[in-house]
Amino acid sequence: MKNSLLKTDEIGVFALGGLGEVGKNLYVLEISNQIFLLDCGIMFPDAHLLGIDYVLPDFTYLEENKERIVGLFITHGHEDHIGGIPYLLRKVNIPKIYASGFAVSLIKAKLGEFTDIKMPKIENYESHSKYYFKDVEVSFVRLNHSIPDMHGIAFKTPLGYIFHTGDFKIDLTPVGPGAEYHKLTKMGEEGMLLVLSDSTNAERDETIQSERAIGESINDLFYNIKGRIIIATFASNIYRMQQIIDASILSNRQVAVIGRSMENAIEIGLQSGYIKAPKDIFVKPEDINRIPPERLTILSTGSQGEPLAALSRIAAGSHRFIKAIPGDTVIFSSSPIPGNQEPINRTINALFRIGADVITHGPLADTHTSGHGNQFDLKLLLSLTKPKFFIPVHGEHRMLKFHRDLAISVGVDPQNILIMDNGDVAAVSKDKIRLAGRVQADDVYVDGTGIGDISNNIIRERKMLSDDGMFAVIITVDNQNRKIIGDPTIISRGFIYMKGNEALTDALANDTKEFVTNVFNNKNLISESEFKTKLSDYLTDKIYDITQRKPMIIPVIRNFNTTDL
Amino acid sequence: MKNSLLKTDEIGVFALGGLGEVGKNLYVLEISNQIFLLDCGIMFPDAHLLGIDYVLPDFTYLEENKERIVGLFITHGHEDHIGGIPYLLRKVNIPKIYASGFAVSLIKAKLGEFTDIKMPKIENYESHSKYYFKDVEVSFVRLNHSIPDMHGIAFKTPLGYIFHTGDFKIDLTPVGPGAEYHKLTKMGEEGMLLVLSDSTNAERDETIQSERAIGESINDLFYNIKGRIIIATFASNIYRMQQIIDASILSNRQVAVIGRSMENAIEIGLQSGYIKAPKDIFVKPEDINRIPPERLTILSTGSQGEPLAALSRIAAGSHRFIKAIPGDTVIFSSSPIPGNQEPINRTINALFRIGADVITHGPLADTHTSGHGNQFDLKLLLSLTKPKFFIPVHGEHRMLKFHRDLAISVGVDPQNILIMDNGDVAAVSKDKIRLAGRVQADDVYVDGTGIGDISNNIIRERKMLSDDGMFAVIITVDNQNRKIIGDPTIISRGFIYMKGNEALTDALANDTKEFVTNVFNNKNLISESEFKTKLSDYLTDKIYDITQRKPMIIPVIRNFNTTDL
Repeated sequence: MKNSLLKTDEIGVFALGGLGEVGKNLYVLEISNQIFLLDCGIMFPDAHLLGIDYVLPDFTYLEENKERIVGLFITHGHEDHIGGIPYLLRKVNIPKIYASGFAVSLIKAKLGEFTDIKMPKIENYESHSKYYFKDVEVSFVRLNHSIPDMHGIAFKTPLGYIFHTGDFKIDLTPVGPGAEYHKLTKMGEEGMLLVLSDSTNAERDETIQSERAIGESINDLFYNIKGRIIIATFASNIYRMQQIIDASILSNRQVAVIGRSMENAIEIGLQSGYIKAPKDIFVKPEDINRIPPERLTILSTGSQGEPLAALSRIAAGSHRFIKAIPGDTVIFSSSPIPGNQEPINRTINALFRIGADVITHGPLADTHTSGHGNQFDLKLLLSLTKPKFFIPVHGEHRMLKFHRDLAISVGVDPQNILIMDNGDVAAVSKDKIRLAGRVQADDVYVDGTGIGDISNNIIRERKMLSDDGMFAVIITVDNQNRKIIGDPTIISRGFIYMKGNEALTDALANDTKEFVTNVFNNKNLISESEFKTKLSDYLTDKIYDITQRKPMIIPVIRNFNTTDL
Repeated sequence: MKNSLLKTDEIGVFALGGLGEVGKNLYVLEISNQIFLLDCGIMFPDAHLLGIDYVLPDFTYLEENKERIVGLFITHGHEDHIGGIPYLLRKVNIPKIYASGFAVSLIKAKLGEFTDIKMPKIENYESHSKYYFKDVEVSFVRLNHSIPDMHGIAFKTPLGYIFHTGDFKIDLTPVGPGAEYHKLTKMGEEGMLLVLSDSTNAERDETIQSERAIGESINDLFYNIKGRIIIATFASNIYRMQQIIDASILSNRQVAVIGRSMENAIEIGLQSGYIKAPKDIFVKPEDINRIPPERLTILSTGSQGEPLAALSRIAAGSHRFIKAIPGDTVIFSSSPIPGNQEPINRTINALFRIGADVITHGPLADTHTSGHGNQFDLKLLLSLTKPKFFIPVHGEHRMLKFHRDLAISVGVDPQNILIMDNGDVAAVSKDKIRLAGRVQADDVYVDGTGIGDISNNIIRERKMLSDDGMFAVIITVDNQNRKIIGDPTIISRGFIYMKGNEALTDALANDTKEFVTNVFNNKNLISESEFKTKLSDYLTDKIYDITQRKPMIIPVIRNFNTTDL
């Protein structure tokens, strides 16, 4: 089946995730009737998505066109780029996943946790690898990011190059190998049709530190701290972990690794050679009390105040092995993600109370966004690649807009820039980029084992329940004889405490009984759903008058049949 | 009744709110057996206090000692300093409230909304006023803050001065009258026993802009904007509103005021003379379409992304009178309060989508904290007042700690500084400050008309409900004959959609029936509560196995009596 939105010779470009949001990146290129997928991530939910574990891209279009998928190309191993792969594999067969080095390790580890999924073919590409498809040559450009082996991906087509940057920043003194800027300029010279580039920091014009400079700061800091060091960072930031290990060696400290995701990351890092450390540097959490304070670094999860993470439990005094003590220095080596400031502050306050010192400011705190280029970096990339057409990706709507302005400032024709939403299909020809239509691209919520079964209705119910709780009234009716049997039972949760409020609940039970009796005494017959609506409205008003709260009212009508006896 | 924690001649100092938190300030001084209250505020709840409207100080101690209260002294009219007054007045009689100018207007407006409360005696103090009590002279020091008529309050006692700063910053070019620094040094010379000072910005060492400089920025900005200006700020920031009105006059714009709290603030400001504006500058919201875009400023609530506030509704396209249009410039004249970044971003993205320009950075964005002095300001205050003893107040624990370090750096003896929690009672004598004990100082939650009836249990229930919803199973049992009557009814909300999941709910209903029958068939008698616990545990496990979700399980047992028939 061909994409009916595209004319012959047009290339289709769209996103099933990553536009209008930071997360669940999944970009689609359609070239000569072949579908190329770029990344497949998850998104961590906003606070308003109550109870949701994470959000997936919508795979409907891919299911409907699965026979045209030729491969999934992964830029790097962060969750918002690989986290959706198991769920995608459940829906469609992917002929081959192309990923590089560390990303391959992470994808394999992830798929290993999903026992229902057959391990797919994974091609471990190198920076110099090339793969050939009909009319298309795929190649790679090593760039720098906060994880090893991040590559931009280039598609050489009859119309010119299409280049997707992945996540990048310009770091001229990186930890790990440098970026292949020459490949960018070469494509620019040969003819760059379209660039899709990372918009995360398009609003930021301040300088972003080189990873190496951060390493020097960590060394200085560790050198000057006398007691134990507890340092929290993202488990995905392998470079930072290496620097913390290096600084510990320099300052003659052993390292205890705390928190499951951190332990996993260290293990994968050591196995795959991305983390280099002498074996005897590590000490088990249960053995740390044998180590003098000034000889110990504790590398921990919980930099975002997550209530169940190691650092939060240490601060709350509920961690199995580790108690914070006066003299400890706790370092947050990551900046707060918006929305997390409150739980982080709670953790910090708790640590201060214990008498620990807490370091939240300074060059270490900037990891969250530091993997993404600032305005200078973004303009440099566009200047090197000189694209005819430009689509800003990987960002909320306002970031995409800022990125658009940056592109115009370095000479991209405003007519040739498209700001799109997930599902918008761009059709690109030699001379023109146009919005050709839409494909389905909703948010798909994952909650427990359920995928896509949680609708916005369920979220709305959770929101109501969380605001004022619920109030259920259960009655048994004898429909034949048009009467209520026994007294109503009232159950509430999250509303008021039943104990001590018997007068209120008794009154409401009586009101309900009277209401039901009146309905039965009335000659007009009404349907059960109409009856429930009336009873709900009646109780909502009553309860609001008394309490000024609006619990979710749940009327339950049980029909009595003598045959049940 | 005397305070048994204090020795004769000791002065008691404690907080019922304001320590370990930013909000619900209520400080208590006990001098010669008289109770002086300082401020009485509310706190807006953290996101984790689901559904709570706000938090009050615990008035228990004041109820138990009400006959010793001689007055309530108000530093200024912000909600975290006056919002609790109506609730306090319901519990205890306050002989007189002492407040100044704008704060008096705000307190009267607030009490007017509580029809059940008799208006108390309110003394409108001036900067030079003095009031005399047994052994105590109370006087005032005008300082600068983000609201007019903010005063620090001084208590001259036989042991020396006790000075409470209220909220302040050092602003040498303020909007409105300047601060009375000479009074601070004079008290310092005569003998300052104890200072309690605002710790909000004790972590910040960067310079905080003078209000006047911000005024100039607003003028420049307004001068350069071509279309409509929609500007959102806190309704409490009278100075900022005046500056916006002034800039509108200068740039030949009329002003529409949108949002109830903003309308109220403008009205009180105009009535009391704190806002000066020609009558014809204002235009009604319903008339704005008659005004050319470049002649209109819309002053709006919603700077924190509050979902029901005017700006959020404008962004969502659901405001009655105002639609945002391409060419509009929306200015957020306030920095985000931690926790509000997500809803603010949603509003910004929606405005960008419409095609409006949005300004969130720059000198205007800094109002939230700009009312509070930075490290320099705090050190200057301590250097001018030269206290023997120091208690940092108005801040989370870590802010209090930072403030302590600042005090030590300007020469306060570390032994003479106490960091306290709400309820901790400091006893101060001529030579010593000591922790004497504790009084009750819990958080009291207000939810609808309920005050203090929402416990942490209810919050926990709401949290459970918000994560995975609820699952109720209702059965009728005939205890005499030890059997279940009819089928169980299953009701869920916020868990899964019943429709489409009939197989799951039918299976669980059957399991429940079987479980109950087994219990009845078993010879061992168990209590109803034991029975409910067993059934809950059984269903929790079943449901988790299938869905990996943990809804709140609510078993409802209705007893059948033939007499009900």
